[in-house]
Amino acid sequence: MTGPLSDLGRASLAPTQSADDAPPLSDIRRLSFNQATAERASLSDVIESCVRHGVPAISVWRHKLAETSAQVAARQIRDAGLAVSSVCRGGMFPAPTKEERAARIEDNRRAIDDAALLGAEVLVLVCGAAPDRDLVSARRMVADGIAEIAPYAAERNVRLGIEPLHPAFCAERSCITTMREARLISEKFASSNVGVVVDVYHVWWDPERAEEITRLGDRIAGFHTNDWLVPVKNVLMNRGMMGDGVIELRRIRGEVERAGYQGLIEVEIFNEALWERPVDELVRTTAQRFVEFA
Amino acid sequence: MTGPLSDLGRASLAPTQSADDAPPLSDIRRLSFNQATAERASLSDVIESCVRHGVPAISVWRHKLAETSAQVAARQIRDAGLAVSSVCRGGMFPAPTKEERAARIEDNRRAIDDAALLGAEVLVLVCGAAPDRDLVSARRMVADGIAEIAPYAAERNVRLGIEPLHPAFCAERSCITTMREARLISEKFASSNVGVVVDVYHVWWDPERAEEITRLGDRIAGFHTNDWLVPVKNVLMNRGMMGDGVIELRRIRGEVERAGYQGLIEVEIFNEALWERPVDELVRTTAQRFVEFA
Repeated sequence: MTGPLSDLGRASLAPTQSADDAPPLSDIRRLSFNQATAERASLSDVIESCVRHGVPAISVWRHKLAETSAQVAARQIRDAGLAVSSVCRGGMFPAPTKEERAARIEDNRRAIDDAALLGAEVLVLVCGAAPDRDLVSARRMVADGIAEIAPYAAERNVRLGIEPLHPAFCAERSCITTMREARLISEKFASSNVGVVVDVYHVWWDPERAEEITRLGDRIAGFHTNDWLVPVKNVLMNRGMMGDGVIELRRIRGEVERAGYQGLIEVEIFNEALWERPVDELVRTTAQRFVEFA
Repeated sequence: MTGPLSDLGRASLAPTQSADDAPPLSDIRRLSFNQATAERASLSDVIESCVRHGVPAISVWRHKLAETSAQVAARQIRDAGLAVSSVCRGGMFPAPTKEERAARIEDNRRAIDDAALLGAEVLVLVCGAAPDRDLVSARRMVADGIAEIAPYAAERNVRLGIEPLHPAFCAERSCITTMREARLISEKFASSNVGVVVDVYHVWWDPERAEEITRLGDRIAGFHTNDWLVPVKNVLMNRGMMGDGVIELRRIRGEVERAGYQGLIEVEIFNEALWERPVDELVRTTAQRFVEFA
């Protein structure tokens, strides 16, 4: 393990090799830098840094759009020649009262508007946790919420991408925790309207991962890469740069590509230690690690 | 929320009620105190405390047996009139070399001997993590390892219980993370020889939990209760006393009981803050919470 961020990760394991591994990426043409990887930087700084390092695409978070306005951000991104792989995030459907659930739906419509304005390929849905202990009801609220916003998204040519989150987030962020569950919801809609976002951090452990990715096929609405650090400390902030953890990144990319996905690959890393680094270093290292390990 | 340990948990949510919930437990006749809940105490202290509070059974950890010997421990437990719901733990099958894997098998045979000597209902298997990144190979090593020790266990009337662990432990403790995966391994054997241990902490999030518990039927080799605290800090030490977290404990117990399980219910809580408390307080609170929430 070399590179400026290696001290943040663990000593690298010898990479395992599988016949099913995707071949290494020879360049960064498919790289999209997810803004969450440089949480402390402004959108302008991230755009500038991506241009400087030849990164062709970004993923934008809505709380960052609030720095200026979606209109200004859209122009900045367009002027810089960057594609937008996704807007993060819609979702968060379950809530204890009808009024609160209606307010969430309204907020999802605004997220769809933002995604349309930015020309994003997908609006990522982080579905939300149960407001009480009742997971069955919460999952029903998620399915109902998606059904309510899907036509609005279709009219604006915005694809919705349900992102199943790792089960460690079930109590706090998403009652949708497996690709199978996300797929079963998405199958009620046209695949161009509602798909599933596959993030290696959330799905690497799943014994049915490979079969589920195959079943998803053209429903794969996005692919995110990063790594799972060992030992786990804070599970939300446990993501690392590709190569610093234990995920079989190329095996999973091979599965996704054989299922037909050839689109942009987002690097999305929530990690407090990384966030301390200058944005330019983060973008440069992301690009290096992308080619070396993703 | 009342009781001496309430400050360790969160403010209680209003309990959700489901028609499928099991009725409250009216007494502690089915309670087994898992020694890990009082990690700092000796086996003798745990035995004494269980007798004092009328707890009828315990679960024993092998590193605690080393305090005396399995023989002495077996006599102490028998003299105290306690049942042994389980011995923790066998497993940890995957290893990088053939020699190391053989050593693990040998250690599992010793664990089976301990379980036989203690008259335990089951030897809990925590299956082990991949020694490198390769989960497929690691899972094969687990299946091979269980096949190798199953006849030895059957000869000694020790039932093996595969415990799927929460996916947050996949990198460090168990590549077997779902009940379905555990069931598929166990189905290669007689259900009296190899079953599955259901721990609410590990399975509460699973969208297929209820169906899988039904499918397990008489393969349920043990049932563990505790709670999932919010917010998650350290995921290994995030367990709390029943009632302090978000798990629908009675709904899950209802599922397990309708599947046919009427055996002992272990309380197993890994929590540094709880471990600071005197063993007697831990056993008393466990008994109270068991009747109130489990």
